[in-house]
Amino acid sequence: MTAFRKTAESFTAGAKTLPQRYFVSPEIFEKEQNVLFSARWVLVGHQSQIAKAGDYFVQEVAGESLIVVRDKGGEVRGFYNVCRHRGTRLCEDQVGHSSKIQCPYHAWTYGLDGKLIGVPNMDEESVPGFDKAEYSLHGVGLALWEGFIFVNLAKKPTPLEEVFAPLAGKFSHWNLPKLRAVKRIEYDVRANWKLIFENYSECYHCPGVHPTLSKLTPYDSAENDLCEGPFLGGFMPITRGKSLTMTGNTCALPVGDIKGEDHARVFYYSIFPNMLLSMHPDYVMVHQIWPQSPERTLILCDWFFHPEAAGVTDPGYNPNDAIEFWDMTNKQDWHVCELSQQGIASRAYQPGPYSPRESIPAAWDREYLRHIR
Amino acid sequence: MTAFRKTAESFTAGAKTLPQRYFVSPEIFEKEQNVLFSARWVLVGHQSQIAKAGDYFVQEVAGESLIVVRDKGGEVRGFYNVCRHRGTRLCEDQVGHSSKIQCPYHAWTYGLDGKLIGVPNMDEESVPGFDKAEYSLHGVGLALWEGFIFVNLAKKPTPLEEVFAPLAGKFSHWNLPKLRAVKRIEYDVRANWKLIFENYSECYHCPGVHPTLSKLTPYDSAENDLCEGPFLGGFMPITRGKSLTMTGNTCALPVGDIKGEDHARVFYYSIFPNMLLSMHPDYVMVHQIWPQSPERTLILCDWFFHPEAAGVTDPGYNPNDAIEFWDMTNKQDWHVCELSQQGIASRAYQPGPYSPRESIPAAWDREYLRHIR
Amino acid sequence: MTAFRKTAESFTAGAKTLPQRYFVSPEIFEKEQNVLFSARWVLVGHQSQIAKAGDYFVQEVAGESLIVVRDKGGEVRGFYNVCRHRGTRLCEDQVGHSSKIQCPYHAWTYGLDGKLIGVPNMDEESVPGFDKAEYSLHGVGLALWEGFIFVNLAKKPTPLEEVFAPLAGKFSHWNLPKLRAVKRIEYDVRANWKLIFENYSECYHCPGVHPTLSKLTPYDSAENDLCEGPFLGGFMPITRGKSLTMTGNTCALPVGDIKGEDHARVFYYSIFPNMLLSMHPDYVMVHQIWPQSPERTLILCDWFFHPEAAGVTDPGYNPNDAIEFWDMTNKQDWHVCELSQQGIASRAYQPGPYSPRESIPAAWDREYLRHIR
Repeated sequence: MTAFRKTAESFTAGAKTLPQRYFVSPEIFEKEQNVLFSARWVLVGHQSQIAKAGDYFVQEVAGESLIVVRDKGGEVRGFYNVCRHRGTRLCEDQVGHSSKIQCPYHAWTYGLDGKLIGVPNMDEESVPGFDKAEYSLHGVGLALWEGFIFVNLAKKPTPLEEVFAPLAGKFSHWNLPKLRAVKRIEYDVRANWKLIFENYSECYHCPGVHPTLSKLTPYDSAENDLCEGPFLGGFMPITRGKSLTMTGNTCALPVGDIKGEDHARVFYYSIFPNMLLSMHPDYVMVHQIWPQSPERTLILCDWFFHPEAAGVTDPGYNPNDAIEFWDMTNKQDWHVCELSQQGIASRAYQPGPYSPRESIPAAWDREYLRHIR
Repeated sequence: MTAFRKTAESFTAGAKTLPQRYFVSPEIFEKEQNVLFSARWVLVGHQSQIAKAGDYFVQEVAGESLIVVRDKGGEVRGFYNVCRHRGTRLCEDQVGHSSKIQCPYHAWTYGLDGKLIGVPNMDEESVPGFDKAEYSLHGVGLALWEGFIFVNLAKKPTPLEEVFAPLAGKFSHWNLPKLRAVKRIEYDVRANWKLIFENYSECYHCPGVHPTLSKLTPYDSAENDLCEGPFLGGFMPITRGKSLTMTGNTCALPVGDIKGEDHARVFYYSIFPNMLLSMHPDYVMVHQIWPQSPERTLILCDWFFHPEAAGVTDPGYNPNDAIEFWDMTNKQDWHVCELSQQGIASRAYQPGPYSPRESIPAAWDREYLRHIR
Repeated sequence: MTAFRKTAESFTAGAKTLPQRYFVSPEIFEKEQNVLFSARWVLVGHQSQIAKAGDYFVQEVAGESLIVVRDKGGEVRGFYNVCRHRGTRLCEDQVGHSSKIQCPYHAWTYGLDGKLIGVPNMDEESVPGFDKAEYSLHGVGLALWEGFIFVNLAKKPTPLEEVFAPLAGKFSHWNLPKLRAVKRIEYDVRANWKLIFENYSECYHCPGVHPTLSKLTPYDSAENDLCEGPFLGGFMPITRGKSLTMTGNTCALPVGDIKGEDHARVFYYSIFPNMLLSMHPDYVMVHQIWPQSPERTLILCDWFFHPEAAGVTDPGYNPNDAIEFWDMTNKQDWHVCELSQQGIASRAYQPGPYSPRESIPAAWDREYLRHIR
């Protein structure tokens, strides 16, 4: 595997961290929101979170509140959370179930397909020129990849399959579409969102920042197989039959058809621009990264398990063993990201040299700069 | 009365809600503060709130703290709350009583007429060129209408009587100057101030938003007699001998010389740009609307009763029956206004069609657009 | 002493307070941060606060977090609190002790002299072109005056001795370098920083604002000996053998070689742009003034005593007697400063006339205007 690392290191020679403006400028933040978060496919959830027709959740994307709902035909759809009458927010709850979407103000009512179906005192005979068909909810682009739901605010988005073509089949044995989301933790981090990606993409910081993790996986053992472009990452070895948990043991059924060596590996991939995908033998962790301002990021972290793990079939099912481990480790990461944000804002900050252990952060920065100059 | 409604509806045909910028733009907010709140007559209170010489209250108008005080001659006066020495805020309490206005910093002292009467260590002999007469408090335009106190920050305001001429005599049998303010509740609402007016001006939202109110007054029964211009509104019927209270019964003496049909009516008028006047047989409710930012509004709500209601002469006096009713109803309204603010800020928002039941909001918008383009 | 005051008064004739923009403008605030706080010597502490090698404190100056540390040779040094690797904040604690400066993120390690001495996985052989000598911490100008530590963010600062030449020897009998800091209180004040200086520089406000102080020292007794320029102030008499304390008695050993009359005097000096120096027979109080925004100032107040006062040699040592007195008096001052800030923000504010008792605030304003136009 040395070959991999050599390649990675050669990319890194001379690479430096991004200039200060990328971490503090409101103009660059706005550009990111327009070019990345309003015009590319971004992760908003997983199909298991809206399993039945009428299930919905609300997610904010680029400042826009969106309703993601499973309609009566079983299709997942996305709408702006805005009534066509006087603009009122329609759904207040973050998650829910309903057979229709009704505005809380004047009771205009929409079907789960977004069509306006009820308008008090506005029958089309008495109000000439009013046509319900002109007042459907505004929709957004929505597509699925391996069971994960992505939305795209662009008017004519590039098809998702095209964007994700390089990953076709790569994760199919992981059973991702069928996993069940068991727990979500939200983190409000006082750091630029890019620091989260740079932090996730290297384990050079592990000895000092993550003493518990470092006992389970050697910090200098990363084997990266995606080293350039919008998909980056690889695996780190663990002891076969173990996992990243507080006890060090696996805590659930294997999540997928895991073969041979993969029982002794944890896979870490970043998926540009807002997804982190961490696959352990017994669970999958996914982070959604939501920039709020140049200095602040909201992070949603979900833990997924085999759909049968939660039932009687897995007596060893103990999800908190994994959740507690990563909640602790996440917080350690966010803390150093916040410290970096503070220092980078200084007039003394200059881009510093990435070490050979930081080839993936350097590659992530290069991908970012392909979009934002 | 059908004629009234027909007229109103004809105004509304094709009317749509205001474009997004009117609800979110800091530039438009600043223009409103200059053109409306700094240059027109705005409601700040009622004469019963400063009944005796030396009584004062402090009200912020367009970012300016003003002292409104009854002077020794019984006249009501308004001053900027700013010492002429080093600019110090003079009155810290929102209401109070004092025989003079003294600066808490260096004890410069002003009469209730605003004249500088005491300056330690600054006698005019020892300090050549210093003349107390040049350092009176800065005054503001102030006038009364039906007992309500209005101020105007313009240098040369149009006389109040001229502005209110269309209403001359209309409310004289309501006894408004003699009413007594019994209760004030402050509301801090995360919505643009215009949404408050638009909300007040229609009952199309009542069935869904106000279940209790809707039992007492049919939502589709409004009879508007002021349908265009700065004064808008009309009445809605209630059961004779009843009122809008938690119990549904009247809770005090009739406020004025109420005649015949008016015992079965509640009158609702909006008075541009910051007053809502709601007259029930047994009490009067007045809202002051104070924009704080494009997305935030402070609302002062006062309940007024017959001056003798509070005494032994009215054994049925139970003001909380009215106050609780409207406090509940107010909060229901502010909540949907806040939801509208959220949705209107979306890129998906477009002006939507006003229904025939929303002729008065449409007229209010037209009046607004006469001042702010 | 009348001569002194006459001179002062003649300076004041016709002097008025500063125009509004100096108290509210973000542009002027930014200019002050650049011209004054980033380019002149500013007080950050006293050498007794980092007595031993490895002792450090962190202070924010003009938005920059600085580490002030005593190195192994006993020299006091200042560094930007920013790692040269990825910009991470190095020291999180406000005060501490350490034999080296180690980054909490990737463990890059610096000596107390700022030199990079440890870099994991970055030995210079394996990483061509990497030279530790190029990655020392960024230093800041630092110098001492009478035991007080000053920093200067300018690239080529005027030597401190040159700036402080007018004060050479003036305070040498006060024993300032050897005093010990006993207590710090932080105040967060909603007022422009210049109002703090103007407030400190006159006792015209004392009768109304400081009833307790006014009993101990007559408000109209100030004798100023520095009446123009960056160093301003003088003394006010107290009863010999007494001090400014809650009990009115001295509360510790005399701080220095105090002679004759000085046992009956309290000296007050402002040292441009961020130091207030108040010397009582038995203690010294020093304020650091840190502007945070046009409308907000952070104030650090330290009380210093004779180094032996805290030990067995001074049975009368009761520092709280002084600390409580000035904590009370400070808060009275900050309150009127906040009231001034509120009023000065009004459109009605105009520069007002300084009285003859306000010659030093007027002189301070003149000095300020020499730097900021």
